[in-house]
Amino acid sequence: MTTYFRPAIDAMTGYVPGEQPKSDTPIIKLNTNENPYPPSPAAIAALQTLKAESLRRYPDPYANEFRQAISEALGVPMDWIIVGNGSDDILNIIIRACAETERKVVYPVPTYVLYRTLTAMQPADTIEIPYGDDYRLPIAELIAANGAVTFIASPNSPSGHVVSIAELRQLAAGLTGVLVVDEAYVDFAEETALPLVQEFDHVIVTRTLSKGYSLAGLRLGFGIANPTLLSGLFKVKDSYNIDAIAGLVGAAAMRDQAYKNECAAKVKTSRAALAIALKQLGFRLWDSQANFLLVQPPQSNAEQIYLALKERGILVRYFHQAGLSDKLRITVGTDEQNQVLVEALIHLV
Amino acid sequence: MTTYFRPAIDAMTGYVPGEQPKSDTPIIKLNTNENPYPPSPAAIAALQTLKAESLRRYPDPYANEFRQAISEALGVPMDWIIVGNGSDDILNIIIRACAETERKVVYPVPTYVLYRTLTAMQPADTIEIPYGDDYRLPIAELIAANGAVTFIASPNSPSGHVVSIAELRQLAAGLTGVLVVDEAYVDFAEETALPLVQEFDHVIVTRTLSKGYSLAGLRLGFGIANPTLLSGLFKVKDSYNIDAIAGLVGAAAMRDQAYKNECAAKVKTSRAALAIALKQLGFRLWDSQANFLLVQPPQSNAEQIYLALKERGILVRYFHQAGLSDKLRITVGTDEQNQVLVEALIHLV
Repeated sequence: MTTYFRPAIDAMTGYVPGEQPKSDTPIIKLNTNENPYPPSPAAIAALQTLKAESLRRYPDPYANEFRQAISEALGVPMDWIIVGNGSDDILNIIIRACAETERKVVYPVPTYVLYRTLTAMQPADTIEIPYGDDYRLPIAELIAANGAVTFIASPNSPSGHVVSIAELRQLAAGLTGVLVVDEAYVDFAEETALPLVQEFDHVIVTRTLSKGYSLAGLRLGFGIANPTLLSGLFKVKDSYNIDAIAGLVGAAAMRDQAYKNECAAKVKTSRAALAIALKQLGFRLWDSQANFLLVQPPQSNAEQIYLALKERGILVRYFHQAGLSDKLRITVGTDEQNQVLVEALIHLV
Repeated sequence: MTTYFRPAIDAMTGYVPGEQPKSDTPIIKLNTNENPYPPSPAAIAALQTLKAESLRRYPDPYANEFRQAISEALGVPMDWIIVGNGSDDILNIIIRACAETERKVVYPVPTYVLYRTLTAMQPADTIEIPYGDDYRLPIAELIAANGAVTFIASPNSPSGHVVSIAELRQLAAGLTGVLVVDEAYVDFAEETALPLVQEFDHVIVTRTLSKGYSLAGLRLGFGIANPTLLSGLFKVKDSYNIDAIAGLVGAAAMRDQAYKNECAAKVKTSRAALAIALKQLGFRLWDSQANFLLVQPPQSNAEQIYLALKERGILVRYFHQAGLSDKLRITVGTDEQNQVLVEALIHLV
């Protein structure tokens, strides 16, 4: 019997998300880059204003209350915004709208593994251009690869480095396909590529509320680009991809920028302190503007340390991947969590 | 300059959802088949148990609490269940996993328009086989069309008719591709095709919480099939397609079958009364086991009536489509809402 699935689906392996123990498990969870601080009290309070009537009815297909809040927070017009069920939804929409055989997807690696998974589904070929050890953007190679879609995560995962707006501008100027700047971690960074969407019709910046806004459980993301680029993406977007509760809570979270910035400032301070402590233990570190650190243990025994930490109830991220298997990605927790981690590491390196 | 999008995307038009006025608009909304009764009090109460911590963290990628509740309510094993952000998400996952050029999508028409929209995205060809005026299933033609995916909505929209399990069994026996029985409206019907998933490896039944459970605002649906069929669908599913709140509320709603059945019974009683009233006004009606009625006005001036009702604050569904442009699809409301509708219609037919 022939298979039920398309050959591309038979050939691919699904994306494997980071371990997600139940939220009542007493664990120090530093593996999937959640914010260590709770969501804005205003976002939680918004839940209390929910009417049963807005559950009974279909939600607004454009999630305009949420879009309005994004528009006000970032100073971009509402019709330059597309919302998603997490920024993963936006990435998926972009790939589905733009990529197929002969329309390639290009990105530097290592980076977010989901780009590869989503591209495999179309299917489209990927061109993966290795970052050097210094994580300098390989601009000429990226332009030469001529993708229908080019992804740059900035800050990048798992490295945490930021690509400067000057470099992104140079890249955008050389590309004819869509350039996606994935700013999932931008709330912990000093720079954004947002001005580029005004300069280039083919640039889209994607954001999420999972990291800076502590709402990973709610699945909210968005993309910002000119309405012409968005018009093709809206055809692919599910009409009701944002539910009524998420739209309401997300709008309240976007309107509380002060709280988000305050939490991000704490994370940045803790990140600096954790980096110093790890360096003192002999780890090699890369400069990070995200809420995590890529670190290489002095003996490069990353997997062993990952397992030993897990046994002690501390989850960090280990990648079975070329170029990464000697490193760990550690989410910046609270100072207290980071201290427990460092004390555990003292016995492991 | 070449377009940013795949040719299939340029060629398609997006799905146009039914009008969704804001939930505080004083309107009688009988156009998108919401349940007229509020969600289960248990579902609303579940919201109060939500912890900020479960918003901060990523949700369970398998939404196991929700799956557990479905498993208990329907008596199917948990690993026979895949959950979606609305059953539209499940339909999308099936098409993305199975359909492409040379792997066609087949369904009788008129039916749910989203099948066509989702197929156009792949792209794959659709074979649309017309129902006769009696809405008898064209089994031989459907088998001959040999789809990689065949969709049967039962109860069907906009007709409201149910396809018997005997006919579906005959169809399944003749097909080698995947047979999807879309049971979005099953909670208002007397029959389900669920036993077929035990009999046939290639049958999947899809359900939603938008209709029977009054949770259209929350976007929850699921599919039931054997784990081998689900394995390919899980590759396409977004890891976190169900958010933490939706999973929690959905589980509580599934556990309150008594409330759902009670509301459905009221809708069925109102459906019968509304049908009688409309017949008395000279409308032609089709037998419906859904929470809506397909009706043909005595003068066939459906669009005119649709517009006149809208002016009076009553929304019903009008389709600009061959075979439907002389008919209206009217959601069954509460008895009070239906009476307002009937009184308005007295002056319009």
